[in-house]
Amino acid sequence: MKHFQEELEDLKNLLLQMGGLVESAIYRSVAAVVEKDTDQAKLVLENEARINQTEIVIDELATRLLALQQPMATDLRFITAAIKINNDLERMGDLAVNIAERALSLLHEPAIRPCIDIPQMATLAKSMVRRSLDAFVRGDAELARSVLLSDDAVDDLRDSTYEALIQFMEKDPENVRPGVNLMFVARSLERLADHATNIAEDVLFLVQGVDVRHHAETRP
Amino acid sequence: MKHFQEELEDLKNLLLQMGGLVESAIYRSVAAVVEKDTDQAKLVLENEARINQTEIVIDELATRLLALQQPMATDLRFITAAIKINNDLERMGDLAVNIAERALSLLHEPAIRPCIDIPQMATLAKSMVRRSLDAFVRGDAELARSVLLSDDAVDDLRDSTYEALIQFMEKDPENVRPGVNLMFVARSLERLADHATNIAEDVLFLVQGVDVRHHAETRP
Repeated sequence: MKHFQEELEDLKNLLLQMGGLVESAIYRSVAAVVEKDTDQAKLVLENEARINQTEIVIDELATRLLALQQPMATDLRFITAAIKINNDLERMGDLAVNIAERALSLLHEPAIRPCIDIPQMATLAKSMVRRSLDAFVRGDAELARSVLLSDDAVDDLRDSTYEALIQFMEKDPENVRPGVNLMFVARSLERLADHATNIAEDVLFLVQGVDVRHHAETRP
Repeated sequence: MKHFQEELEDLKNLLLQMGGLVESAIYRSVAAVVEKDTDQAKLVLENEARINQTEIVIDELATRLLALQQPMATDLRFITAAIKINNDLERMGDLAVNIAERALSLLHEPAIRPCIDIPQMATLAKSMVRRSLDAFVRGDAELARSVLLSDDAVDDLRDSTYEALIQFMEKDPENVRPGVNLMFVARSLERLADHATNIAEDVLFLVQGVDVRHHAETRP
């Protein structure tokens, strides 16, 4: 039977593996929208099952570790954080699928200019995902805090994207369908950033024992 | 010091209290959209803090119960389900806030006919929320399964609502803004139904020890 600390290490590695799958799904789904790349969109849809399977494996391991052992406070915090981060990553996988599906719908629509803000939102959201996972691996509170700060920037980009898309749709009825698709892409990117923020908050709780949820005033 | 079983009962009651707050937020946010009722929308925004606070209290109690005790398998399953259901309920509170904010934007827009499907989606989503919470309280697997079955109906209603709204927006540029707002209301209702489905899946796991996530083929 494996030693408890080894199993905790397994749990961490599984989460990183899940994080890698999700990051790659996000990269591909955004490339599918921006470069109208069908293959990338299809890869995202094909890999969804693997992400979902990994989620279940992680959940089972975490639950087993809680059941078999009486973890110390630090380990317990790590395991409960793992359960939450796992849940966020699975949702992020779903959002990448949503984006890939929109990319496939957009193939039949003319390319549109307000797409310009979407790559910028995507770059920021992807960076937040990467930083939140790095912060988790390294237990880096500073890096986790930087994710919280980026969340407002994503919200601002989303607002300007929505406004640009609405004006674009008002200009010509033909723009309505592509506009709606891009609106949902922007919405999914914003949600991805929210999940990265959740992970960063879990990392802060893990590292510092401080619950920063719903307390904007405690953010730097 | 309270007996462990009493604390589990506290945890259950707190979840029911949280469920009540969330249900009332959903009712009010939908009424705000359908009846253009500003007061209801404002109440939802005011009550968000209470929901968020309750989430933290529940999380703390659940984590403490995991830390202080070495729970038996059944109790452990109950506590981990409580952590997940709590998380779903908090997200549902956020979605009610999103709907209430859209309701406030819609006040300045002309009333539109495709709104017709929204009350129907809302009624179904609300019934799913209620049934998933009732299934949790009673440990009722049959009721939980009925929630899973309703999820497809909500997805169908969402698709027809989207299509009706797109055609409506294509007809007149003036319809774009209210159309976009209603589209996001429909999206939030669909997400509420998804979270009710998550809760129902947790209840099935709790009652039967079966993990039904990501296995559509096991659904009746």
